[in-house]
Amino acid sequence: MECPCKPKLQAGAALEKENRQHQEQVGNPQTADSLPPVRAPNSYHRRLLPKDCIAFSSPEGRKLFTEAINSNSNYMQIYFPLAEQFITQSEPAYCGLSTLTMCLNALQIDPGRLWKGPWRWFSEELFDCCTSLNVAKERGISMTEFVCLANCNGVLTEAYRATNDFTLEQFRDIVKHSCATNSEIVVLNYSRMVLGQTGDGHFSPIGGYHAVRDMVLLLDVARFKYPPHWVKLSRVFEAMRYVVPAMNKPRGLVILREAPHLANATAEHTHSDNKENAAPIAPQPCCYSLSSVEAARRVADSPAKGA
Amino acid sequence: MECPCKPKLQAGAALEKENRQHQEQVGNPQTADSLPPVRAPNSYHRRLLPKDCIAFSSPEGRKLFTEAINSNSNYMQIYFPLAEQFITQSEPAYCGLSTLTMCLNALQIDPGRLWKGPWRWFSEELFDCCTSLNVAKERGISMTEFVCLANCNGVLTEAYRATNDFTLEQFRDIVKHSCATNSEIVVLNYSRMVLGQTGDGHFSPIGGYHAVRDMVLLLDVARFKYPPHWVKLSRVFEAMRYVVPAMNKPRGLVILREAPHLANATAEHTHSDNKENAAPIAPQPCCYSLSSVEAARRVADSPAKGA
Repeated sequence: MECPCKPKLQAGAALEKENRQHQEQVGNPQTADSLPPVRAPNSYHRRLLPKDCIAFSSPEGRKLFTEAINSNSNYMQIYFPLAEQFITQSEPAYCGLSTLTMCLNALQIDPGRLWKGPWRWFSEELFDCCTSLNVAKERGISMTEFVCLANCNGVLTEAYRATNDFTLEQFRDIVKHSCATNSEIVVLNYSRMVLGQTGDGHFSPIGGYHAVRDMVLLLDVARFKYPPHWVKLSRVFEAMRYVVPAMNKPRGLVILREAPHLANATAEHTHSDNKENAAPIAPQPCCYSLSSVEAARRVADSPAKGA
Repeated sequence: MECPCKPKLQAGAALEKENRQHQEQVGNPQTADSLPPVRAPNSYHRRLLPKDCIAFSSPEGRKLFTEAINSNSNYMQIYFPLAEQFITQSEPAYCGLSTLTMCLNALQIDPGRLWKGPWRWFSEELFDCCTSLNVAKERGISMTEFVCLANCNGVLTEAYRATNDFTLEQFRDIVKHSCATNSEIVVLNYSRMVLGQTGDGHFSPIGGYHAVRDMVLLLDVARFKYPPHWVKLSRVFEAMRYVVPAMNKPRGLVILREAPHLANATAEHTHSDNKENAAPIAPQPCCYSLSSVEAARRVADSPAKGA
């Protein structure tokens, strides 16, 4: 099973690899001036982005953002709700859970159960179904588990594996459609290695599209490692297609939309973009039960904190 | 002592007051269509903003943002590093700690100690000095504690109380100066009540300034309650000046800047904006010691998670 965010190597080897990749990336002109030096060989304060990834706050990143915001093509609509809910993953292996948290809050989904005090709000620790939080903390979640969790928490999903018959043009159309809305988010499941980044399997939502440069804005939740960045659509397409030896299928993408009802909320397109070929996956029985909502509301009678 | 984020009433009365204020705000045209209805009388999924606060993602909010980004006055520079690190406060009373976390990461301060795995990164739980986390979770932190924590963690601070001799013009100049930089952040400590919002004492960083409309963008970390919003500079000025009966001084603002050295990092201007009147406050002995940094780095030898 694919396990995004999971370290593929033991700590020593992983750190050695991180250091080697880091040395190769030090010359990156977008970020070299603005990041402090690494202060110890065995811990890290962020990473330098590879050359092809343009940091959101760099001069070129700001230029791309301003051009995209001002474009008549209107592919920065989804930026606003996502920017409102941008978060840092609360555990190093939580990229999938944190990306989903961010998207559910951006889509204004009411979790129907308490977070803290009297507030109903999505946070990673609320995802107590499809897989256990302890397992997710250890090895991350797969794209299939991501879809299960999304369905269980009130959104429709449409999942695509980046197989050979899934084309760059189809991918671009999906990105354009999503980015021009306020209510549909594309989450990529991809290999960082293909982008020249350290680590491997990862999830990121697409926060906007620059049509003239054919680049997407990745709102990467591993903010302790990399800032949000612009990257060529064709590069992330290749990063979705990459199949690691331990997997027998490529990664892909999941489209999230608000769902009025939970039943039959999923379609996974593994060999075609033809929606008629969809194979619905039923929500897990562990998820989102009315009784858990009611129980959470009873807890709301306990003293509340302000904000 | 002033205690931002602290609930002023017991749970039942607080909830009743929240409901009353909520009913008064339901007519807000910026957000009424986009927020789901409250699903239980004793718990909440967000709040409607009062009329004078314009939600970032609303049509008018997007218009203000685009105008400000395109303005030659350049007062949206600080938006980029802050947007990269926008967070939700992890506890209902953590508005001060979470705002500081966001600002330290936006200023690219290296905490010099581990967060999780091999990563050095600011998160609320790292603020283990100036006040205890248990106390902060119960009653929030004061502006004085905010300044102490900022100094202990490597930034210079300049604090202003909004006394009668602190003028709107001085405030506007401070905001303009900060918003035109990438390296200086203004954090407001203010009363939500004056803005027509539920709750009272609160901290928010200013994420940009619209000169023509004379409005600031508040990147409010209580995102489970209110989205980021634009509000008139004169309104937040009044919200800083408001003195609650239990306090004998107004709230105010803190300017944060990266500090090369920690000693004598603070100046609090309680009666004048004249910097020569500064009364330096020494960092607390509990904070940011080299030994704790070294200890944290030793922990980094333990197995690391990927991201």
